Amino acid sequence: TKNPVDWEQTQKNLQCHSLSTERRCSFSIGEKFQLDDVIEGQQFDRDILNAIFEVARGMEKVEKNSPESQILKGYIMATLFYEPSTRTRLSFESAMKRLGGEVLTTENAREFSSAAKGETLEDTIRTVEGYSDIIVMRHFESGAARKAAATASIPIINAGDGPGEHPTQDDIKDYLTSKGVKWSESTNLMEVASECDVVYQTRIQRERFGERVDLYEEARGKYIVDRKVLDVMQKHAVVMHPLPRLDEITVEVDSDPRAAYFRQAKNGLYIRMALLKLLLVGW
Amino acid sequence: TKNPVDWEQTQKNLQCHSLSTERRCSFSIGEKFQLDDVIEGQQFDRDILNAIFEVARGMEKVEKNSPESQILKGYIMATLFYEPSTRTRLSFESAMKRLGGEVLTTENAREFSSAAKGETLEDTIRTVEGYSDIIVMRHFESGAARKAAATASIPIINAGDGPGEHPTQDDIKDYLTSKGVKWSESTNLMEVASECDVVYQTRIQRERFGERVDLYEEARGKYIVDRKVLDVMQKHAVVMHPLPRLDEITVEVDSDPRAAYFRQAKNGLYIRMALLKLLLVGW
Amino acid sequence: TKNPVDWEQTQKNLQCHSLSTERRCSFSIGEKFQLDDVIEGQQFDRDILNAIFEVARGMEKVEKNSPESQILKGYIMATLFYEPSTRTRLSFESAMKRLGGEVLTTENAREFSSAAKGETLEDTIRTVEGYSDIIVMRHFESGAARKAAATASIPIINAGDGPGEHPTQDDIKDYLTSKGVKWSESTNLMEVASECDVVYQTRIQRERFGERVDLYEEARGKYIVDRKVLDVMQKHAVVMHPLPRLDEITVEVDSDPRAAYFRQAKNGLYIRMALLKLLLVGW
Repeated sequence: TKNPVDWEQTQKNLQCHSLSTERRCSFSIGEKFQLDDVIEGQQFDRDILNAIFEVARGMEKVEKNSPESQILKGYIMATLFYEPSTRTRLSFESAMKRLGGEVLTTENAREFSSAAKGETLEDTIRTVEGYSDIIVMRHFESGAARKAAATASIPIINAGDGPGEHPTQDDIKDYLTSKGVKWSESTNLMEVASECDVVYQTRIQRERFGERVDLYEEARGKYIVDRKVLDVMQKHAVVMHPLPRLDEITVEVDSDPRAAYFRQAKNGLYIRMALLKLLLVGW
Repeated sequence: TKNPVDWEQTQKNLQCHSLSTERRCSFSIGEKFQLDDVIEGQQFDRDILNAIFEVARGMEKVEKNSPESQILKGYIMATLFYEPSTRTRLSFESAMKRLGGEVLTTENAREFSSAAKGETLEDTIRTVEGYSDIIVMRHFESGAARKAAATASIPIINAGDGPGEHPTQDDIKDYLTSKGVKWSESTNLMEVASECDVVYQTRIQRERFGERVDLYEEARGKYIVDRKVLDVMQKHAVVMHPLPRLDEITVEVDSDPRAAYFRQAKNGLYIRMALLKLLLVGW
Repeated sequence: TKNPVDWEQTQKNLQCHSLSTERRCSFSIGEKFQLDDVIEGQQFDRDILNAIFEVARGMEKVEKNSPESQILKGYIMATLFYEPSTRTRLSFESAMKRLGGEVLTTENAREFSSAAKGETLEDTIRTVEGYSDIIVMRHFESGAARKAAATASIPIINAGDGPGEHPTQDDIKDYLTSKGVKWSESTNLMEVASECDVVYQTRIQRERFGERVDLYEEARGKYIVDRKVLDVMQKHAVVMHPLPRLDEITVEVDSDPRAAYFRQAKNGLYIRMALLKLLLVGW
């Protein structure tokens, strides 16, 4: 594998921080393991996550024109996007095609529910499920993916619903805490950077500051990951970012081996390949 | 087959209502039967329709990765849409992919004829036919599909042209009448529902009422297919609808076995698979 | 081959006009010949052009479901279009699919660099290269393709960058002159038409005339290729046009065997197939 550091790191981090987690196994290996839908991060316990990660690691090794590259041959994925998100869409479509599957693309699914056509999400899902084997959906309304999954007889993958687009910061915090990861807040980036294993940087959302552009500018200036931050970080630590980035990580960081954000995007592809496999043909 | 009722019903209905139809066969089975273009419903006589239905029935049984699922391998279909119609586009693209074919998608074909680029439909067709083996076209101008077919040396499928988008109600009436189906108009939905074999419900088009929202609301309220309508309908009858529906059929009808509109959408897929086969490789 | 005249003509024209060109061979046949990126016409010397033309001639003979139609199986091409150009996009996508490759389509790549998402072209390229094996890119900024190629570890094809969309007239003139093609300017279309081997007509760009619609109309009227121009042209000469055309070539010219513009579009497909082959798997 080209970037073994990443997976190992991810696992090491999860393990060394975990306190005590329940050891109830949610499925038996050997037994048929198949996901029904992927609606939110919280639906996965650690066993399922480990299973997904294991399948994802296998996906890194899938070579062009190998039998593994054809396991989804004959399957059709529909990307039903009610708002454009090209990065996410391309990632899922690439994942599907790398496993031999076919794709139907819809970037203006809003047309279905537009004033003129005005049909319910449920009716749209019932129509599209007749044309495809799995639906990857992005919607502007919170809860839309769950509603779709309740209607559909084929698997639904939530590629973002609601204004937050992604689980919010608080959700992530709750989620990581529930998994035993230690979490602390700080206004001192340098201090934190020197201690932690993962610096997970995100975009500072201008829209949250409203009229107060001055406060936005101040916040932006304060939490930039640059050469100086790298200098205090531990050797084994990594900088992550969900992308796109603006200037919250400077380009001088890109060439450092601890800059993991582009590898992270690539790993996202393997995770999506794993999810598609688990949803369509099982373990 | 999963919904045998539908085809049988369709045929039974056609037969029991037909009075006397000419028995001139438009093609001989065994002989090569290949369609040239699909421009309008009226171009098909009963023999051709029966042939299409027979091929469509076969399409229901096409299984993933079977030899039949590859009969259009190597063929490329271009969807040339001058206005978006995601439902129609997905249906054709799914049909093509289920037979092993490839798709080139164009949802903003209007760009070709835009002020800036400004080329004639004929020139666009001559260009696109160089890149594909069949063109599925949707245009905003009545007669565009016929014009395209006259220019193209490859098959054209009309997926709607002109403001009506679909053959108008009058066309359908003329068409069915010419085939021997009895037709009557009524303002009493309950009476009609109790007698007929097929309730073909359509959207009441608000745009036809102009400013008279009151009349629109009145019309809407009067012709809703709901539980009470189902109660008077015959056991073997079916409710059809071209979709999308607004509230002219209530959701309580959906779970009744006589609700045929979602099956109808699925059957539309098989018909499209049949048309693609007949246009590209023949009977 | 269906239109042998075209290639032969093209070559004959190049040869009979060439004065003296350097005979340094830029690659050895037999030796692995692979292109890295396609950024601008000027990057090719005559040897490379001849190699591309030779591969393109082979592409004309690729038949459906032959082994040659599968040489790019397993490869994924992303079309990253920052502004729509359906004709160009379809041509590349058709080329890729005719060689067995897969396509990820992005017609609204501007979203990546939009105010809301705001990422640099370099970051977008680093993300998209994780999902694909080659990127065909169209951008609104001059130099964007070169910038992308400097960042990407996979091949980039420039499908137009900057307001000119295509190499400007002056570039073409310089280019042809450097290759030894004689070039002259004239305001007398009839005289020129009777002497030359190739009439390469282009759209008269209205936007260059600004407010002076009168001058635009005058220019338009003066340089129309019609029946009368055909009458004075030599038998072996051809009329070319990059398409789309407005009325600078009248439709009465279309049926003349010297009208080469639709064949030209088809040959563009073979050139693109050749480029994809040379970029992805080499000679």
